[in-house]
Amino acid sequence: MALIVQKYGGTSVGSTERISHVADKVIAARREGHDLVVVVSAMSGETNRLVALAKSLADPPNPREFDVILATGEQVTIGLLCIALEQKGCPARSYTGAQVRILTDNAYNKARILEIDDQAIRHDLAQGRVVVVAGFQGVDAEGNITTLGRGGSDTTAVALATALKADECQIYTDVDGVYTTDPRIVPRARRLDRLSFEEMLEMASLGSKVLQIRSVEFASKYNVPIRVLSSFEDGPGTLIVPEDSIMEQALISGIAFNKDEAKITVLGVPDRPGIAHQILGVVSSSNIEVDMIIQNIAHDGSSTDFTFTVHRNDFKRAMALVQEKAQELEARQVVGDDRIVKISLVGVGMRSHAGIATQMFQALASEGINIQMISTSEIKISVVVDEKYLELGVRVLHDAFRLEEAA
Amino acid sequence: MALIVQKYGGTSVGSTERISHVADKVIAARREGHDLVVVVSAMSGETNRLVALAKSLADPPNPREFDVILATGEQVTIGLLCIALEQKGCPARSYTGAQVRILTDNAYNKARILEIDDQAIRHDLAQGRVVVVAGFQGVDAEGNITTLGRGGSDTTAVALATALKADECQIYTDVDGVYTTDPRIVPRARRLDRLSFEEMLEMASLGSKVLQIRSVEFASKYNVPIRVLSSFEDGPGTLIVPEDSIMEQALISGIAFNKDEAKITVLGVPDRPGIAHQILGVVSSSNIEVDMIIQNIAHDGSSTDFTFTVHRNDFKRAMALVQEKAQELEARQVVGDDRIVKISLVGVGMRSHAGIATQMFQALASEGINIQMISTSEIKISVVVDEKYLELGVRVLHDAFRLEEAA
Repeated sequence: MALIVQKYGGTSVGSTERISHVADKVIAARREGHDLVVVVSAMSGETNRLVALAKSLADPPNPREFDVILATGEQVTIGLLCIALEQKGCPARSYTGAQVRILTDNAYNKARILEIDDQAIRHDLAQGRVVVVAGFQGVDAEGNITTLGRGGSDTTAVALATALKADECQIYTDVDGVYTTDPRIVPRARRLDRLSFEEMLEMASLGSKVLQIRSVEFASKYNVPIRVLSSFEDGPGTLIVPEDSIMEQALISGIAFNKDEAKITVLGVPDRPGIAHQILGVVSSSNIEVDMIIQNIAHDGSSTDFTFTVHRNDFKRAMALVQEKAQELEARQVVGDDRIVKISLVGVGMRSHAGIATQMFQALASEGINIQMISTSEIKISVVVDEKYLELGVRVLHDAFRLEEAA
Repeated sequence: MALIVQKYGGTSVGSTERISHVADKVIAARREGHDLVVVVSAMSGETNRLVALAKSLADPPNPREFDVILATGEQVTIGLLCIALEQKGCPARSYTGAQVRILTDNAYNKARILEIDDQAIRHDLAQGRVVVVAGFQGVDAEGNITTLGRGGSDTTAVALATALKADECQIYTDVDGVYTTDPRIVPRARRLDRLSFEEMLEMASLGSKVLQIRSVEFASKYNVPIRVLSSFEDGPGTLIVPEDSIMEQALISGIAFNKDEAKITVLGVPDRPGIAHQILGVVSSSNIEVDMIIQNIAHDGSSTDFTFTVHRNDFKRAMALVQEKAQELEARQVVGDDRIVKISLVGVGMRSHAGIATQMFQALASEGINIQMISTSEIKISVVVDEKYLELGVRVLHDAFRLEEAA
C-alpha cells in the first residue's frame, strides 16, 4: 500500500463525462489498496472564460481580485469530482487551497508555495476518504486567495506529494509519457520508461511541454518521483526520478526542438567590458526573453560579434531595439533571421562521453545540414539550423543515436 | 455620513456591463460620504449552469460538494465588481463568506447564519475601502463551505447590516419598490414609500416576490431598515421598517394574490381527534407544502368537511394520496379544484378596524364574485375565488380601498 498523489489536467476533466471517467480511475487505484490525494485543474476552457470576463473590465485586472476569480475554476472541478466519487460509492472530500492551507507568498497571479499543512488531509486519509485538492491555488498569511501561475496545478501536486512524503506523484495528461522526440516527426519515437529530473528539465524547457519546469525543479529538489501518464489510455507512462536511481544510463535520452526561435547578431561590436550587458539590457527590460547567447573571441583584437535568440513573436521588436542600441555603441551592423530552429540532444550519459558532439555534427553534415550556432551544457548539445531542416535534422539524429531501441 | 449595506441580485450583475454600472452606483453613494458594504449574487444564469453540471453527475449531488460548487458563482462576481471599482479609482476589497467569516451551522444547501465576524470589514472600511462580500455563502465551524439556500444573498445583506449596525440595508432588484399590487394587473398600482416588516412578510409570502421571507424575518428581528430599490432606475424605492416607526398608518397597504393554488376538500370526515393530522400527514410527508387549512364545525354532530390548498403542481399527487387516506378513514368523498386563486388584503391598520372584512366581501359581491373560502390573520384577509375572477377581484379591491391614493 502506497500514498499516491494524482494530478489531472484541464483536458482530463474537460466535461462531466471525463470527470466521471477520472473518478473510475481513482477508484481503481484505491481498490489496489493505495491512499489517494487527487489534484485537479479547472475544466478546459473555464480559465479562459474567467480571464476574458475579468479583462473585459480592466486589463490588467487588479491582481488580488483576478486571483479571487481564477481560483473558482478549480473549485468547481473539486466539487464535481467528489460528487462523482461519492455517487460511485467512494468516500471523498474536496479542499480548496485555503482549506488545506497551502500557504503561499502574496505575489498574486504567480505566488510561490511556502508551506503546506498536511493535518486535515492526513485525517481524511485515515478515515478512508479520497482527498481532492484544487490545484493552482493557495492562500497568503493574511487569508487572501492566491494563484500559482501557469502550470500551477502540477506544482500543487508535487508540493503536496513532498509535504505528504508520497510514494509517487502521478501527472495525468493527454500523452502517455515522455518520448525520445515528437512522434509526429519521428513515428518510431519511443516512450521512455525512465528519465532523470535533469533530463526532464532540459526536455521541458526545449519544448516538450509535458510537465511544467517549476514542478520538475520542485520534485528534483525534494526527490519526489513523478510519473507522467495518459488519462485516456492505460499504460506505465514515464517515471522521472533522481539520476542516481537510474541503473543503466542511456547516452542520449531524447531530442528536443524549438521552432519558435529567431536569432539576432550584432556584428563588429567594440570589444570592451559591459557591451553584452548593454545590448541584452534593452531587450530584457522590454520583457523579451532571451534563450541562447553566443559570443566568440574578438576576431581582430578590437571588435567582436554577438548573437542571441528570442521567441519569433518578439523578433521585430527586439531587432528595432537592438538596431537603435547598436548605433549608439557604434557597432558595424545588425543582422537577424527568424527562419531558424533549435535542435537539442539531451542525456545525462553524454557528460562522460566526449564523442557525442562529433557524432551529432557528423550526422547533420551527412545530410548537408549547415550548423549556424552551437551551444552546450552538461547534459545537452543544442544547434541552430535553417528551419527547413527541422524534421530532417531530428530524424537523422534519432537514427544516428538509435533512439528507437531501448537502452 | 452613514454605513450602508447594498445588495445587488443576479440580474443587476448579469453582465460585465451591468457590473460596471453597479460600480458607478456604488461610487456615487460613496461620494455622498457613506461607508459601503456591497453584497452580490452570482451573475444571472450562472447558478443554473453550476446546478446543471453537478446534477449531471448525481441527483441529488453530495450536499457538501454541491455547496463547494455553488459558492463559486458569487466568488466570481465579487472579484469582477472589485476589478471594476479599482479600475474606476475606487479602493475595494472582496471577501468570500469564509474570508469574512460568516459562521453558519453545517446544514449544507440551507445553512443558517450563526455569527458574523465584523473585524476585517471594519478595518477595510476604516482604510477607506469599499467592501464587497459574496452573498449566499458562509462557512461552518470546521471550515466547510456552506450556502444559505434560495434568496440567501438577501439574508447575507441583512445579517451583515445587523452585525455592522448599518443605518440601512438597500436591496437592489429589477423593480423600483413594493407596490400596492401587481402593476400588470392594476396599472394605477402605487409604489409604497413605507411598509412595516409584518406587512412585507404577508406580501412576500403571498406572491409579491421582491424580497425573500427569511431576510425580512431577520431584519424584523433586529430592526434593520430595508430599502427596496431598482438598480436600473433612480428613485427612493420602498423603505421597510418596524411598525412603530410608521407615523400615519394606512388601513390597507396592498393586495397580494397567488394564482398557483389548488384546493382539496374531504367531505364527511368522521369528527374525531387526530383526523386532520392523518389527512395532512400523508401530504406533508410527501414533501407537498400546504397553504390554507380550513375546517368548520361538525355539521351533523358526527362528521365534518376538511379543506386545504396546495401548489397547483402538486395537485394531482396530493389528490391521489388523500383519496387513498379518505377510504381508510371512511370519509364520504374527496373533491378538488385546481382552477382557484387566492386574493389577500394586507395592512397593519385592519387590526383595529373590524369593518375591513365586510367592505372586502361587499366589494367582491358587487361584481358577483363568489367567495369559496376565507382565512384571516392579524393583518391579512385572504379569500379563495374561481381563477377567472383574479384580475377583476384585485381591481375591485384596489378601487374599493382607494389604494391608488397615498395614505
